[in-house]
Amino acid sequence: MFVLGIDPGLSRCGYGVVEGLGRGRARAVAAGVLRTDPGSDVPQRLAALQVDLRSLLGEHRPVVMAIERVLFQANARTAIPVAQAAGVAMVEAVAAGCQVVEYSPNRVKQTITGHGGADKRQMERMVQTLLGITMPLRPVDAADAMAVALCHLAHAPLRERVSTRMEGQPRGGLQVADPVPAWGPR
Amino acid sequence: MFVLGIDPGLSRCGYGVVEGLGRGRARAVAAGVLRTDPGSDVPQRLAALQVDLRSLLGEHRPVVMAIERVLFQANARTAIPVAQAAGVAMVEAVAAGCQVVEYSPNRVKQTITGHGGADKRQMERMVQTLLGITMPLRPVDAADAMAVALCHLAHAPLRERVSTRMEGQPRGGLQVADPVPAWGPR
Repeated sequence: MFVLGIDPGLSRCGYGVVEGLGRGRARAVAAGVLRTDPGSDVPQRLAALQVDLRSLLGEHRPVVMAIERVLFQANARTAIPVAQAAGVAMVEAVAAGCQVVEYSPNRVKQTITGHGGADKRQMERMVQTLLGITMPLRPVDAADAMAVALCHLAHAPLRERVSTRMEGQPRGGLQVADPVPAWGPR
Repeated sequence: MFVLGIDPGLSRCGYGVVEGLGRGRARAVAAGVLRTDPGSDVPQRLAALQVDLRSLLGEHRPVVMAIERVLFQANARTAIPVAQAAGVAMVEAVAAGCQVVEYSPNRVKQTITGHGGADKRQMERMVQTLLGITMPLRPVDAADAMAVALCHLAHAPLRERVSTRMEGQPRGGLQVADPVPAWGPR
């Protein structure tokens, strides 16, 4: 199952596509940052972001968009444009037939590293480990988006993952190999 | 020129379509509230709002969407979903070929009543007067949206209004009759 992780933002919107392989393994498919021109006005920037998100969804056809929840407390100055960008991401995902699931930043950190107060470096190291890659994850928005996608793979109810993977497979051809969350604090 | 005023919200999104007739006159075309099911999750609600907004834009074909700016200070609890709804409204407007213009709540009040601290009742009375209607404007979200649309008609630069109205008209067939803002504090 392909999961598109989104770290929403208007200036920089991080994305990471991860494929869940079962048995706690996952593969990084694509990651990056969608940027919009700070010189344009907000509606035009949101429209540009919409186009980029639509391309991503069309290219990777994820089953789920896992998106970091915008918290009011987190950053008062940018909360409004970040929420606007998140709104656009959500409707694009729904239009593409994706399930959309929100995770708070603390939930993502807790799931990936085992504690909600993890710093950027700890998060990056765990994301690298989970994806089996050694190269630095840059820019940081892309690493954050990967973390949200991995968080979803860890939390998605088993039945949901099973039913998704069964589509298009011969009936009875699926073995349930991982009845516990694939990742997360153990 | 048709202007679609939007008072954004996820539970209740007010809209008002106003036609500017020149010489400071305007006509109310349509007004109401788009509601989404509080029992659904946010992405589904935003998607439902998107469908309704698209219908409105298709039906009335406004040249401009005038939308109330979401202010962080105004209401901490609801700012995030309101901003998400505003983001969706903006991208729908851009997709429909509309210009999108944001006005702060204070700017709307200042323009319509002459002072930024006007209360709901004062606002409603002035909107009724400007539109030449006597019936109460209910629900209040619709009246607020009408006010934003009227605010735009008052502030839109003259050249913009002229160029819009000149489309499809015989060259030289337009008389500039209102070189001052159509409404607002005098």
